[in-house]
Amino acid sequence: MSKINKIAVFTSGGDAPGMNPCIRAVVRTGIYYGLKVAGIRQGYQGMIENNIVDMDNHSVSNILQLGGTILKTARCLEFKTPEGMQKAYDNLKKNKIDALVGIGGDGTFTGLERFSSKFDIPVIGVPGTIDNDLYGSDYTLGFDTATNTVIEAIDKIRDTAESHARLFFVEVMGRDAGCIALRAGIAGGAEAIMLPEKDTSIKDLIATLAAGAAKNKTSGIVIVAEGDKNGGAFNVAKRVKEVFNFYDTKVTILGHLQRGGSPSSFDRILGSRMGFAAVKALIAGEHRKTVGLRGNEIVLTDIVEALNGHEFKLEDDLMEMSTILA
Amino acid sequence: MSKINKIAVFTSGGDAPGMNPCIRAVVRTGIYYGLKVAGIRQGYQGMIENNIVDMDNHSVSNILQLGGTILKTARCLEFKTPEGMQKAYDNLKKNKIDALVGIGGDGTFTGLERFSSKFDIPVIGVPGTIDNDLYGSDYTLGFDTATNTVIEAIDKIRDTAESHARLFFVEVMGRDAGCIALRAGIAGGAEAIMLPEKDTSIKDLIATLAAGAAKNKTSGIVIVAEGDKNGGAFNVAKRVKEVFNFYDTKVTILGHLQRGGSPSSFDRILGSRMGFAAVKALIAGEHRKTVGLRGNEIVLTDIVEALNGHEFKLEDDLMEMSTILA
Amino acid sequence: MSKINKIAVFTSGGDAPGMNPCIRAVVRTGIYYGLKVAGIRQGYQGMIENNIVDMDNHSVSNILQLGGTILKTARCLEFKTPEGMQKAYDNLKKNKIDALVGIGGDGTFTGLERFSSKFDIPVIGVPGTIDNDLYGSDYTLGFDTATNTVIEAIDKIRDTAESHARLFFVEVMGRDAGCIALRAGIAGGAEAIMLPEKDTSIKDLIATLAAGAAKNKTSGIVIVAEGDKNGGAFNVAKRVKEVFNFYDTKVTILGHLQRGGSPSSFDRILGSRMGFAAVKALIAGEHRKTVGLRGNEIVLTDIVEALNGHEFKLEDDLMEMSTILA
Amino acid sequence: MSKINKIAVFTSGGDAPGMNPCIRAVVRTGIYYGLKVAGIRQGYQGMIENNIVDMDNHSVSNILQLGGTILKTARCLEFKTPEGMQKAYDNLKKNKIDALVGIGGDGTFTGLERFSSKFDIPVIGVPGTIDNDLYGSDYTLGFDTATNTVIEAIDKIRDTAESHARLFFVEVMGRDAGCIALRAGIAGGAEAIMLPEKDTSIKDLIATLAAGAAKNKTSGIVIVAEGDKNGGAFNVAKRVKEVFNFYDTKVTILGHLQRGGSPSSFDRILGSRMGFAAVKALIAGEHRKTVGLRGNEIVLTDIVEALNGHEFKLEDDLMEMSTILA
Repeated sequence: MSKINKIAVFTSGGDAPGMNPCIRAVVRTGIYYGLKVAGIRQGYQGMIENNIVDMDNHSVSNILQLGGTILKTARCLEFKTPEGMQKAYDNLKKNKIDALVGIGGDGTFTGLERFSSKFDIPVIGVPGTIDNDLYGSDYTLGFDTATNTVIEAIDKIRDTAESHARLFFVEVMGRDAGCIALRAGIAGGAEAIMLPEKDTSIKDLIATLAAGAAKNKTSGIVIVAEGDKNGGAFNVAKRVKEVFNFYDTKVTILGHLQRGGSPSSFDRILGSRMGFAAVKALIAGEHRKTVGLRGNEIVLTDIVEALNGHEFKLEDDLMEMSTILA
Repeated sequence: MSKINKIAVFTSGGDAPGMNPCIRAVVRTGIYYGLKVAGIRQGYQGMIENNIVDMDNHSVSNILQLGGTILKTARCLEFKTPEGMQKAYDNLKKNKIDALVGIGGDGTFTGLERFSSKFDIPVIGVPGTIDNDLYGSDYTLGFDTATNTVIEAIDKIRDTAESHARLFFVEVMGRDAGCIALRAGIAGGAEAIMLPEKDTSIKDLIATLAAGAAKNKTSGIVIVAEGDKNGGAFNVAKRVKEVFNFYDTKVTILGHLQRGGSPSSFDRILGSRMGFAAVKALIAGEHRKTVGLRGNEIVLTDIVEALNGHEFKLEDDLMEMSTILA
Repeated sequence: MSKINKIAVFTSGGDAPGMNPCIRAVVRTGIYYGLKVAGIRQGYQGMIENNIVDMDNHSVSNILQLGGTILKTARCLEFKTPEGMQKAYDNLKKNKIDALVGIGGDGTFTGLERFSSKFDIPVIGVPGTIDNDLYGSDYTLGFDTATNTVIEAIDKIRDTAESHARLFFVEVMGRDAGCIALRAGIAGGAEAIMLPEKDTSIKDLIATLAAGAAKNKTSGIVIVAEGDKNGGAFNVAKRVKEVFNFYDTKVTILGHLQRGGSPSSFDRILGSRMGFAAVKALIAGEHRKTVGLRGNEIVLTDIVEALNGHEFKLEDDLMEMSTILA
Repeated sequence: MSKINKIAVFTSGGDAPGMNPCIRAVVRTGIYYGLKVAGIRQGYQGMIENNIVDMDNHSVSNILQLGGTILKTARCLEFKTPEGMQKAYDNLKKNKIDALVGIGGDGTFTGLERFSSKFDIPVIGVPGTIDNDLYGSDYTLGFDTATNTVIEAIDKIRDTAESHARLFFVEVMGRDAGCIALRAGIAGGAEAIMLPEKDTSIKDLIATLAAGAAKNKTSGIVIVAEGDKNGGAFNVAKRVKEVFNFYDTKVTILGHLQRGGSPSSFDRILGSRMGFAAVKALIAGEHRKTVGLRGNEIVLTDIVEALNGHEFKLEDDLMEMSTILA
């Protein structure tokens, strides 16, 4: 492998708090070690459209605390075609870019894997998604911030829940992964949690709520992951209401506010460490790897292993606690 | 009017941040001036059910910063009947309560007005509702906190809006009053605001959004008050999507999280001043009044006037700014 | 007076949250009404050094939620000299600037007044300072945000105060004005408040604390404005500790974190209204005025009157409450 | 070892956010598994003074989101004496308490170790301290929340730092451990970090700041751990000011506000998991252990090993990054 002189960083897929600290770390670490650094805007789309800018230390001043991603992100179908990939590669060459750091989720990693199979360019993936559903890292960028955002919402709803006798349904992100729902549900003291991974029937839910009512609970909060089989918070609320007439029911759909917000300390540190490690890995000659946090250490995982691996991040003790502590 | 020895305070209708500072002020001011103070739990319902407790300085320790209301609130149909009112009155007499401070909205004031027409008991109303839709006060308790809650949500959504090209619809409280929508829309920099008081057609909305797109705006946030004529954020989003295919659209329904949260400094001060003034008014022999803030002064308004009056709180300059500054 | 074609906006003195919403409103309102708008960086210093940039709608995108001021601010001694003023004027002429909007405190207004006495240029002042110590407006930009920042700090300290038996001294901003100390003290439930305007002796303070201890208060928070005669929180704590050995004492100096933070809804609306009104006033031919909020209306005050006037913003009921509710 | 029927939980030493979620988990897990649970108020002091209350599920309702500790905490010299320990033991027996869960830091663990050497009572320690300076767990309760609190303060200071040319010194907690300073410094983007573990001279600090100034940095933030050898932020600021006259300097002492605040999601989950695991460990017959988080798993460590062990939690990559990314 030839020496790396210039690297590029991009973000792709859903944005997540912590991406900006990671971009900053890539840029500043690269420059510190004598590399040139470019930023590719709008992910793979920007690679194809040559939307690429050179970055220096000042380019990433004052972005540590910003939500979202200053490089923006986009979905890009064209990159899935050989022609799209070729255009992207030509643009990288034109910009003298020798290596890539891509920050994103599953789709981003798939893109990196395919691209680096086809073209001789070192790539490192950084797990950035609020869903925490990637293999190779205990935590993904944005998950901690998103969970804090959800519990702040739950805390507010609980204020009013305590004042009235009411049942609240809060829909949180997670089409396939219940990580946010489970953690936020426990951290928010939810009476029940509906996860995509677990088939909770409306009947079971009502049994849980009835047990609470029997213990004189006069209000309650139910967390519903958007991927729950019953079809979202509005549907769950409606069906509970039909049977369980005791409570007034109210629905909150948090939606994309879960993606935003200034990254938490955890996500800023994680993003900084991962960006720092990604550049060091490229300098050390690593290729086709993803960066991850294991315990308190940064580790590398082969990108194919990361794509094929499955980690069940609904820890057993958390699943148990979710019913015992409520 | 005979001398007042014991007063009672209660909260009724929808809870609002700032009610607890107000309860605290009523209790501590009353005790300071030598009165006994009781708290009635669950509003008029508690009056009917004799759910009344004596309060001292310690009863209201550490509640200044709490959302909701420690006295809880409830809707109560029975209080609208002569029998219900009689029960309530008998319970007040049983508890030797000579005067009432009721914190809430329109319904609370109506109850106070009818009750005090029928029975000889001094009453003072304190405007507590996040909707800011009462006559006699520039601001109602909870409005400032709720508006801050909404703009925090908008700020988060904007992070992700800036990262992608997307259109976000955020539904906020306000069945009849657009105060929250208008203020939060301006303070959050929304591209458009849909108010119950103003008949914005989907066609007009699309024209506004198209004008933004023409100026290279790649994302946008539309605030929809729940009372908007087009039927809420989901409906508005759906109808915009049908016509305006440029953007991806996403919906957030904030719901009851707007009612919760630790009261802002403004609402703590306002609640404290209003509670303080309510007790002083009772001591001074005032009767059938509501307390309000005018400019920077606390004023009293006749309760009948307060009930009949209408204040258009969508200030002209705010309405104008909402389109000019977006 | 000749027709205005181009206006300039600047911030000066201590920065305050709400300045950015005001800058945004000036720029967008100006452009809406067909004016050109420039921004002067670093206040009067930038005027002298010709640090002036043309602004358009995009220049103020996404600044509504930012603390500080994008135009920066500086102290400038040279502007107090005739030569400095002449340089400033020449630069304004060079940039074809016909009128000025200056956002800041007392020093900013003094500068505007002197400059416009000497040169024929319309000026409007906008009160921007966290201290709330200007005549002509119930509230100055930044005061609401700063007060919220302080009460969040007090709330956190109270958590730990309740866990231990301890006395906390919190120093807040306010060299001459106790507005922040008084409001935050009441809103935070402080046991005592030391204001520059009131000569509270250490002896009186100890008497207050001893009275609290007698009522079984096991912890307490004392707010000390930096301008308090006893010399700041460390000195007050030390002197209390010498006499009053019951409690462990701890000190927090909030310092400049009180100036920062995303502006509250109140300050965003206030800044937007004031900036909007300032431009409209210039268009209407107004000159040598300051903009202010009275009740819920925007008003203009003659700048000389604003400079000479004194408003005692420690409202009587707040002063009374500060001892009664604690 | 005889069967456990009743356990007690207490908090001791400095309070930390996350203690309440942990207390809640101990109580509810205990009750779920058929145990009786008592709470000891004010730590070892309460053990000696028999300040012990029985707890049920309701005792810990709505405490998940509260900072501090509902059981309060205290320093207790008497527990270090044989007589004090005997009194404590007698009171436990009187209350039929068979086992203890103690939440706190080094001193708390030392107490547990000595007490359980002397008396036959199973004990489990839970690491609760914002300093993150205990062996046996990657994270201690409260550290994540405290770090978030510090970066929120830094973010606010940076707003005003950017508006002026100024140097800010922010003193954070950490008498012996620089964990908060290091993480918050990196997450807050501080220009320099002064740690107790590292002997940074004023000369070195000035060299760093001069290098920043040479790169056109016009403002900066220096984090100073309270245990830094140069004697705290005021002293560091004074000495820098003497030599480095370029900047105006300002000091913030965060003090005890770092201990307060609603626990973050991370600390609520960690507290819940640790409390849950502590009770399960007692039921499983474990004795003289501490609970900890390693990676994403809860582990037990022998209490003597925990007391003697040292973990250098200033990770190498963080130390490196702190200079490279600034």
